[in-house]
Amino acid sequence: MSDLPKSVSISEEGPREGFQIEPGPIPTARKIELIDALSETGLRRIQVASFVSPRHVPGWADADEVVEGFRREPGVAYSVLWLNEQGLDRALGKEGIEMQGSISTSASETFMGKNTNRGYERNREVQKNQIDTYLAHGMPVRKASVMAAFGCNFEGGVPVSKVLEAVRDLMEIAAEKGVEIGTLSLADTMGWAQPASIRAVVGAVREEWPDQEIALHLHDTRGMGIANAYAGLEMGVTKFDSSVAGLGGCPFAAHKGAAGNVCTEDLVFLCEEMGIDTGVDLDGLIECARLAEDIVGHPLPGSVMHGGSLSRFREARA
Amino acid sequence: MSDLPKSVSISEEGPREGFQIEPGPIPTARKIELIDALSETGLRRIQVASFVSPRHVPGWADADEVVEGFRREPGVAYSVLWLNEQGLDRALGKEGIEMQGSISTSASETFMGKNTNRGYERNREVQKNQIDTYLAHGMPVRKASVMAAFGCNFEGGVPVSKVLEAVRDLMEIAAEKGVEIGTLSLADTMGWAQPASIRAVVGAVREEWPDQEIALHLHDTRGMGIANAYAGLEMGVTKFDSSVAGLGGCPFAAHKGAAGNVCTEDLVFLCEEMGIDTGVDLDGLIECARLAEDIVGHPLPGSVMHGGSLSRFREARA
Repeated sequence: MSDLPKSVSISEEGPREGFQIEPGPIPTARKIELIDALSETGLRRIQVASFVSPRHVPGWADADEVVEGFRREPGVAYSVLWLNEQGLDRALGKEGIEMQGSISTSASETFMGKNTNRGYERNREVQKNQIDTYLAHGMPVRKASVMAAFGCNFEGGVPVSKVLEAVRDLMEIAAEKGVEIGTLSLADTMGWAQPASIRAVVGAVREEWPDQEIALHLHDTRGMGIANAYAGLEMGVTKFDSSVAGLGGCPFAAHKGAAGNVCTEDLVFLCEEMGIDTGVDLDGLIECARLAEDIVGHPLPGSVMHGGSLSRFREARA
Repeated sequence: MSDLPKSVSISEEGPREGFQIEPGPIPTARKIELIDALSETGLRRIQVASFVSPRHVPGWADADEVVEGFRREPGVAYSVLWLNEQGLDRALGKEGIEMQGSISTSASETFMGKNTNRGYERNREVQKNQIDTYLAHGMPVRKASVMAAFGCNFEGGVPVSKVLEAVRDLMEIAAEKGVEIGTLSLADTMGWAQPASIRAVVGAVREEWPDQEIALHLHDTRGMGIANAYAGLEMGVTKFDSSVAGLGGCPFAAHKGAAGNVCTEDLVFLCEEMGIDTGVDLDGLIECARLAEDIVGHPLPGSVMHGGSLSRFREARA
């Protein structure tokens, strides 16, 4: 019938994604407040900031202060995002940040061109050079990502064969450089996926690389995020990226139509209600989601934060 | 792997549910405008109004005017809701309204008590009397509904055995009165369902009544609506109730935490993208959803109406 895992691992990306897109300005102390609150929910991976150009991303002009200011909870791996050497250098100087390298490509060459101004050939060279850089800094390289793995605004539907080619490419690059890909991330970068395409793509990747751990990065642009996560769970996927309260998406206010990652507390609800362990305290996480809404000052897309968990009804019966 | 149907039938309940809960007042002409727009999308079943006490539901004080005023599109079945004899009498007087009787019970007796002030014994008598009334008016009785089929705020989780008992009850009542249940509706009245419980309940019902057509009525209180619909589709369910734009739910404004049925255009997107025919023009429906938002004057929970369909990206490639 299905192949639901016993437990899953969730990477929280809400702070990094959310504070990047929010019109703000949001005080540094409040960003830290959210990260500290998330650290107490049982989440084991939190991406806390983006080391990018303050000119391009004013929301992260205070990335250094945020990263220096939050409380390190033992057992939680904190990570940051960088897009170039400058960003990497800023990140390398910080204590208590998990520094891991990753490589990436896209199942749509057109999207990659628009996004990074590279073709496939050039990207291969860039990825190899990045592995060299990471290894030179003593950083492990364990993650490989395929963007636009389920469809592309420029190319339309993306054939499964293109995804497999992209994965082969990354595997070859990793093999050539002697690093092992622990997690292969398949990203629905532009919100094209639906459960059947999740099954098709994950199934095809699994058939060629049966032992490869797969992560899903699901944007919720068209409301399919939770259904897609469920389809992934049915295929035995155990790693998901997500954003508390749906931070990063803001369909109801300034960024109408934009949408971030699937909402963390909705994902936790889905898993826990089906008996899949997330390690996360749902009610605590709902409090974080409400805090996030308070911090950004407008409604966020999450559902469970508004509908509430079921624990109070169950407790009333116990 | 799964048992996806080739086509599904969607009952649109947005106007009836939405205008009932909205604080309003919403002009009669605008209610009619939405119904007329929905009639052009390819939807084949639309519930247009509620004949209930204007004292209790001021939003439907103009039900007569709405029902008399909208344009009847050939091929569309329009229905109305009533909760007692008075409501039924008002509905019987209207032209171009499909009059069908239905019977119902609840998988949670506590919920039924709170909702209707009846226990199971009393409800059986009431349902039998209703069948008599419907038949006396020449109305077919083809639908039976089980409320709280996936959980209950008063009783907590509802065992599958309770749902089966409730269905047996309704089947016995129907048999005794000589009517045949065409559609068995399983309602997640309080938003407790998740995909695994959908599979468990639908699977158990199917095992006992293999040829019974099943409909799902899914409230989206905790964001599981689309995932639950997908789980239903995997089990071969072909009938769904839904609300354009997620009307009836209003987590972002006056009715924080309330949520209506699963959103129609998100459901249509889910189905059509997986190759399941709905007969509905998605882009036309998205226009209706935006019209609904304009009419109620605040954001509604639908996602595809904000994220947009994929057709413009595909057309740009064609």
